[in-house]
Amino acid sequence: MTAPPQGTHPRSAQRPADRGTWRDRIYVVVFESDTGWGKAFDVALIVAILASVTAVMLESVVGFANRYGDWLRAAEWLFTALFTVEYLVRLACVRRPARYARSFFGAIDLLSILPSYLSLFVPGMQALTVVRGLRILRVFRVLKLAHHVHELEELLLALRSSARKITVFVMAVLILVMICGSAMYLVEGPEHGFTSIPRGVYWAVVTLTTVGYGDISPETPLGQALAAFIMIMGYGIIAVPTGIVTVELSQVRGVSGQACDTCHMEGHHPEAKYCRRCGAPLV
Amino acid sequence: MTAPPQGTHPRSAQRPADRGTWRDRIYVVVFESDTGWGKAFDVALIVAILASVTAVMLESVVGFANRYGDWLRAAEWLFTALFTVEYLVRLACVRRPARYARSFFGAIDLLSILPSYLSLFVPGMQALTVVRGLRILRVFRVLKLAHHVHELEELLLALRSSARKITVFVMAVLILVMICGSAMYLVEGPEHGFTSIPRGVYWAVVTLTTVGYGDISPETPLGQALAAFIMIMGYGIIAVPTGIVTVELSQVRGVSGQACDTCHMEGHHPEAKYCRRCGAPLV
Amino acid sequence: MTAPPQGTHPRSAQRPADRGTWRDRIYVVVFESDTGWGKAFDVALIVAILASVTAVMLESVVGFANRYGDWLRAAEWLFTALFTVEYLVRLACVRRPARYARSFFGAIDLLSILPSYLSLFVPGMQALTVVRGLRILRVFRVLKLAHHVHELEELLLALRSSARKITVFVMAVLILVMICGSAMYLVEGPEHGFTSIPRGVYWAVVTLTTVGYGDISPETPLGQALAAFIMIMGYGIIAVPTGIVTVELSQVRGVSGQACDTCHMEGHHPEAKYCRRCGAPLV
Amino acid sequence: MTAPPQGTHPRSAQRPADRGTWRDRIYVVVFESDTGWGKAFDVALIVAILASVTAVMLESVVGFANRYGDWLRAAEWLFTALFTVEYLVRLACVRRPARYARSFFGAIDLLSILPSYLSLFVPGMQALTVVRGLRILRVFRVLKLAHHVHELEELLLALRSSARKITVFVMAVLILVMICGSAMYLVEGPEHGFTSIPRGVYWAVVTLTTVGYGDISPETPLGQALAAFIMIMGYGIIAVPTGIVTVELSQVRGVSGQACDTCHMEGHHPEAKYCRRCGAPLV
Repeated sequence: MTAPPQGTHPRSAQRPADRGTWRDRIYVVVFESDTGWGKAFDVALIVAILASVTAVMLESVVGFANRYGDWLRAAEWLFTALFTVEYLVRLACVRRPARYARSFFGAIDLLSILPSYLSLFVPGMQALTVVRGLRILRVFRVLKLAHHVHELEELLLALRSSARKITVFVMAVLILVMICGSAMYLVEGPEHGFTSIPRGVYWAVVTLTTVGYGDISPETPLGQALAAFIMIMGYGIIAVPTGIVTVELSQVRGVSGQACDTCHMEGHHPEAKYCRRCGAPLV
Repeated sequence: MTAPPQGTHPRSAQRPADRGTWRDRIYVVVFESDTGWGKAFDVALIVAILASVTAVMLESVVGFANRYGDWLRAAEWLFTALFTVEYLVRLACVRRPARYARSFFGAIDLLSILPSYLSLFVPGMQALTVVRGLRILRVFRVLKLAHHVHELEELLLALRSSARKITVFVMAVLILVMICGSAMYLVEGPEHGFTSIPRGVYWAVVTLTTVGYGDISPETPLGQALAAFIMIMGYGIIAVPTGIVTVELSQVRGVSGQACDTCHMEGHHPEAKYCRRCGAPLV
Repeated sequence: MTAPPQGTHPRSAQRPADRGTWRDRIYVVVFESDTGWGKAFDVALIVAILASVTAVMLESVVGFANRYGDWLRAAEWLFTALFTVEYLVRLACVRRPARYARSFFGAIDLLSILPSYLSLFVPGMQALTVVRGLRILRVFRVLKLAHHVHELEELLLALRSSARKITVFVMAVLILVMICGSAMYLVEGPEHGFTSIPRGVYWAVVTLTTVGYGDISPETPLGQALAAFIMIMGYGIIAVPTGIVTVELSQVRGVSGQACDTCHMEGHHPEAKYCRRCGAPLV
Repeated sequence: MTAPPQGTHPRSAQRPADRGTWRDRIYVVVFESDTGWGKAFDVALIVAILASVTAVMLESVVGFANRYGDWLRAAEWLFTALFTVEYLVRLACVRRPARYARSFFGAIDLLSILPSYLSLFVPGMQALTVVRGLRILRVFRVLKLAHHVHELEELLLALRSSARKITVFVMAVLILVMICGSAMYLVEGPEHGFTSIPRGVYWAVVTLTTVGYGDISPETPLGQALAAFIMIMGYGIIAVPTGIVTVELSQVRGVSGQACDTCHMEGHHPEAKYCRRCGAPLV
């Protein structure tokens, strides 16, 4: 048994013992996706989320808003109503509603309907409804039944075990961009676009990450020489997170092998002969 | 014996039993490249494809089109005629023409002559003839006889086995750019170039992939801070696909080698002649 | 026992034998962070550094400087005074002050107060006070007590062992950008922005590192073809430092773990309790 | 004994048997760097090359050329004279002058003096003198005595063994940019900067390599959607060469271990017990 991926609610704790009551049957459809109806519900939900997000996006395009504005707004309210009903149903059929409401997916479900209601009082909040896009993460729950979940777990495991190294690395990068940005502010000065130190730091981030918009770029020879030095440095630095993630991924790879019969420990080395937690031989 | 790379038609199934007939001899020249004539045909074909694509490209350059327009159009029709004849010959000498027509290379062969004929009825279709460029993929079939095919197989194998992880990764990136794009649309607004949410999403893709055109770039301090955050995040994210592909490539590497008959050791150096564990000769 | 990371002062050599005197007790607070007061001091110091750097940054923003200029300058002098006192205290409580003053952190401590005093004589030096940002590196010393230090050590070890390869690589890149830059200067010429060879070299660095500002970009067909060639070359070149760092990181990974006392197997999982080859407990 | 790195002339073949003659003693100084005088000569040469390249670069800067033009031109002719003498001395003291003249370094040595003489007849050739920069590659020969040579060999070995895979990869990328560029030419058209298919291909290279100048960028919604798709694809593609080089580097790493006593084969697997060429046990 693999542990549930981060963010899913503890189903086993909430799943009712007898599945006969009205509430339990709805629970199975709404929260799970291993029955026919459950799967159909999830697919319909994802379609609705995509349609809703598309509507919000199109509404922000001036041409579309002028021509189909009424339809788009109608669609948005329709989806908001649907998602509100869905949220209430989820609250109703779960054993511990408070726990669901505070869970990762519960919070997203609420966040995806709030902006529409808020926009009645505060104009301009409608763009926030794209938060609904986060609900597409539910796709991963549907995928759980497919073969993709193992890959997702490997990626998450690798990212989690490289989190510390990447934190240390990001801190070093932050100090670096601060110093580079200040140096460029001193060298180039406000007359070449480096109007303040924070703006210099913004330039340093744009440069070190190799994004390079060109909205601010050095113009003095000294500034260009310094910038060239920073770029070549950034060239080497970009190697570090890649190296970290690659090594962790290669550690994780193949980890899904045998589990210990004695202590059910998983994630052994491919060539391991004994469990690394209890020392029992691996068959 | 390694499996043929994806997209080649099943030669062995189509190859005629006796090679004496007129059709069979043409088949060997046109479809295979392990005889002298077959190789010559393939090389001539690749030269013709390159010349044809160059002609189409040059025709799109205004200066060239004005001066040599007639010649270029003549060349294009000449190549179209040649490729049409070649297509018909292929259909004629193959055992099961319908199967060839539906195969990957059959479809490309058809696609590479269609736009020229279509341009007689719909003007402007001529640019589509660059699709002929895809026919250069036939180079890989010629290479099959050379040493490159092993490398190509390793690359394809690694890409295929990392396809699922990359799918999961691309989905996560798509959700990310949608949310980042919407946030920037809210923060920067239409007056700084973020005229709609789709345009914000476009900006987010340009930024997260570190392309950074600079056609849209944040101008408010808050927007620049958010953009800097997105860039540093993208810096870490670019590490993930690299890590995935690297790990798969290192898994694939050397896998195609021999195993020792004596001690069953695997993973030998491609050019090894003796087992590195027991010293027995590798056959 | 792992060696202390580069840049920390040799504590054991400077730590006094008896800890009862007034000077020794201050030493423990100011230089070490494994006591309650020592930790509190370090945290307070980091907060002060962050506040001070923020003040210097905000002062460079014209809007802020006009409104809160007096407050920001007052804050800066306050922090300068605090850091000066701290520097003097450090000098006073260390056994060998000269050694501390010449150490890495001692130099940074001095550098972080000098610009303020210099600005009394030379105007415009204040921006240099961002050098204080370097003092944030002390965070790493605080982290030493936490779990991050192991990760930092691995990163530093990998970077140090790949330093030579990266030096060789950077030299090759420098020769490459010089030649590419000169070639583009010849091909494009001053009328398309390539006003001199150094500027061409600057363009080559911007392009090869994939930063791509677009402040100078080729405009003639030949120049664009050459640039496209350089870019695809740069695409392959960016792989080299990444490969170097990844390999070193994977060599370093897990190296710090224990070896089995029974069978001398090495390279165990960091959390392993039993040898994976012989099943004996790891001490 | 490791094989000499690519491009060095076969010293052992050219080195005279008795070292007493005048010519031989010069040979040792000019061509080798393991004696005191040889090393001094090499260092002086590198300084002269750097100075000469700097002079050529500065001459291309308008401000400098106006003020110090005469001095710079004088310096250039001085260096040209020096290098010409050096070239003649090399020819004179080598056993087989023709062989040296055709070698890699011999060609560079000639190329570095030719442009100056050519500029007497064809104006504007002077910029070509930066080719002298290539002579800095001689640094690697000096380094051969230092510890860097091993690193250089590892890098070269990894690059050479990944050359085939990268060739296959670059071919695939070339077909890809051709198709993407044509598609964008059709979608965006000349009115948005995509004036011809070659220009579209140039844009595709700039985008896929994540350089992103922004001199041409899509403006229609369809073009931006297509561009976003190409960028995300490029994101995955950039992973491939990195993966290739990383895997080869990790194969090469540690290869410098034991050599076979029987056949002097090198480059065994770190854990190998038997030579992979002759099967003799490795001690």
